[in-house]
Amino acid sequence: MHRLVDVLRETEVDAIIIANSGFIDPTFYYVTGALSGGLFEGSYAVVTEDSVRILTSPLEEESAKKTGLEILLFSTKEEWKEVMARAVGDSKRIGLNYSALTVSTLKKIEEALGEREWVDVSEKLLERRMVKDEEEIKALREAARIASEVAEKIPDFVVKGMRETELAARIVYEMLRNGAQDEAFTTIVAFGENAAEAHYLPGPRKLKRGDFILCDFGARYMRYNSDITRTYVFGRASERQRRMYDVVLEAQRLALREIRAGVNGRDVDTKVREFIDSTEFRDKFIHSLGHGIGLSVHDHIGFTKNYDLIIKEGMTLTVEPGVYEPGFGGVRIEDDVVVRKDGVEVITRATKDLIEI
Amino acid sequence: MHRLVDVLRETEVDAIIIANSGFIDPTFYYVTGALSGGLFEGSYAVVTEDSVRILTSPLEEESAKKTGLEILLFSTKEEWKEVMARAVGDSKRIGLNYSALTVSTLKKIEEALGEREWVDVSEKLLERRMVKDEEEIKALREAARIASEVAEKIPDFVVKGMRETELAARIVYEMLRNGAQDEAFTTIVAFGENAAEAHYLPGPRKLKRGDFILCDFGARYMRYNSDITRTYVFGRASERQRRMYDVVLEAQRLALREIRAGVNGRDVDTKVREFIDSTEFRDKFIHSLGHGIGLSVHDHIGFTKNYDLIIKEGMTLTVEPGVYEPGFGGVRIEDDVVVRKDGVEVITRATKDLIEI
Repeated sequence: MHRLVDVLRETEVDAIIIANSGFIDPTFYYVTGALSGGLFEGSYAVVTEDSVRILTSPLEEESAKKTGLEILLFSTKEEWKEVMARAVGDSKRIGLNYSALTVSTLKKIEEALGEREWVDVSEKLLERRMVKDEEEIKALREAARIASEVAEKIPDFVVKGMRETELAARIVYEMLRNGAQDEAFTTIVAFGENAAEAHYLPGPRKLKRGDFILCDFGARYMRYNSDITRTYVFGRASERQRRMYDVVLEAQRLALREIRAGVNGRDVDTKVREFIDSTEFRDKFIHSLGHGIGLSVHDHIGFTKNYDLIIKEGMTLTVEPGVYEPGFGGVRIEDDVVVRKDGVEVITRATKDLIEI
Repeated sequence: MHRLVDVLRETEVDAIIIANSGFIDPTFYYVTGALSGGLFEGSYAVVTEDSVRILTSPLEEESAKKTGLEILLFSTKEEWKEVMARAVGDSKRIGLNYSALTVSTLKKIEEALGEREWVDVSEKLLERRMVKDEEEIKALREAARIASEVAEKIPDFVVKGMRETELAARIVYEMLRNGAQDEAFTTIVAFGENAAEAHYLPGPRKLKRGDFILCDFGARYMRYNSDITRTYVFGRASERQRRMYDVVLEAQRLALREIRAGVNGRDVDTKVREFIDSTEFRDKFIHSLGHGIGLSVHDHIGFTKNYDLIIKEGMTLTVEPGVYEPGFGGVRIEDDVVVRKDGVEVITRATKDLIEI
């Protein structure tokens, strides 16, 4: 039985087409189990109650075979139409993932298959993918392990005068050597005042005594991602740096205590925000508390004041409070967690004590 | 004057909305010039004849300001609707990039703006973006320089018994240290028989005497990408390895001589394929000759037997013939070129002599 049987039943569609074309739709990997090899760009999965078929080009045939699924090959547009029509057969109601399907691809599919009833199954797919099974959690744990071990070693890599880009390069190097398929996203390293920009990318800024060192990075393993942030101080922390760090760490501990199956993500965000706003760092927590993580780094909405998400057992999310002060710097501490019935399993394991390098 | 004025005029639309939401649409960076900072996920550009406006969240405000453009901020869905309606004003015909717009986002836009005439401007946008201006070529040259310099050093990094993943890690490390914002795509390193898989990803395979070493990688600089492949032999090349290498190198030279403004990409692919098929490596060139490169690694269709693309001055493309023999190995040699009136400017500059390490 494949992973989308329930989605087919609940949406009462005869088939689901997942287009990994135009853009990458991680649902393609989710349902086919094609977790290694290339990206299968331009490939499709056609899913019915009792089958998952891969439509791909001869170039991807070898990688596709590893899934053990039936493979339909095409090279030209005409061949694509043929195999698509064959895979879908006489299915009447066809589910599509509107949130990951381009309008162009939708039009191509409509043209190839003619008169059918199209159903947007994106919400049900998301709902299904938000709750990870143990096989997925195993891959996520490994991605988290790789990044955590690198995080523990960062203090050893740091040298006065080095550039942000150099430290970022070292972090990526160590993740790849430690078993990552790739970095999960562009590695962030921010020194000193740059740590105040939440979406900073590393630049030529050189490390000075007294700087914050904020590192936000993750590993990809079997296409699953991790996402961890640690903040250090180069030299002795000033009083204010230490207070900033302590508030963020306390905020994260609070979050980790609050998260369990059944709570509303919005409430967790609010509690953490209220705590930070009760300190001298009022209004300085400028992003949401965390996001879902899985086959995508931003897998789904997580803890935010703008959305009600009822947290379920098996969800995997980041928990990443931060405090930012323009001109001074910022602290963010981020871990990945698996939601269990009565709490969380933290899968990123690097120390969170304030390290003065 | 901004970069999409001609597209607006030719498609006779009053405004174009570029949604960098759901998926990344590089057209957003192209028209706003937001070439550094975060990815601006969830942001939009609204373009009229005399203005380009960025709709984004407060988190991206600082990065957005660097563009010098007008910025409209939103935090909630309601605010998004408001600023979208304000930016679009009473425009009647509105252009959208269907090839990079999800169906979900299209529906959200329709809901926010009500009755308008929607026009798919994706083809014109692609046409415009395919021809690079000198500012873009400058960034592409820099991305190519970074990767080329690393390619020249690869023979120094190679050690007997090292794993593919270790060499890949080193290549990425050196690109980041050499000024890359990031790797352009997941770095490919394939040893020995693995070099026969065109879409291989590095694994634990250890380097042995007599192995091919195929490295396919690129750097990202100011969001523009490079893509280079070099193949080496570890130890002395066998006769067959050398013949394979010589055929691919000769095939690439042939391609570089053929490419100029006005030729059909399909014809170049065919000529190169015919040449390879006239050798002992008949039918072993199993992918297309090259693709457009720019803000995306696969920016547009390039040289392929399945498509007529009239090559224009200012296009930037990869030229990458290869020969693959399962169980034995493969050779690919790839450069990036700028098309000029009477030929090409090769912007990746690492040596192509067969190196026996």
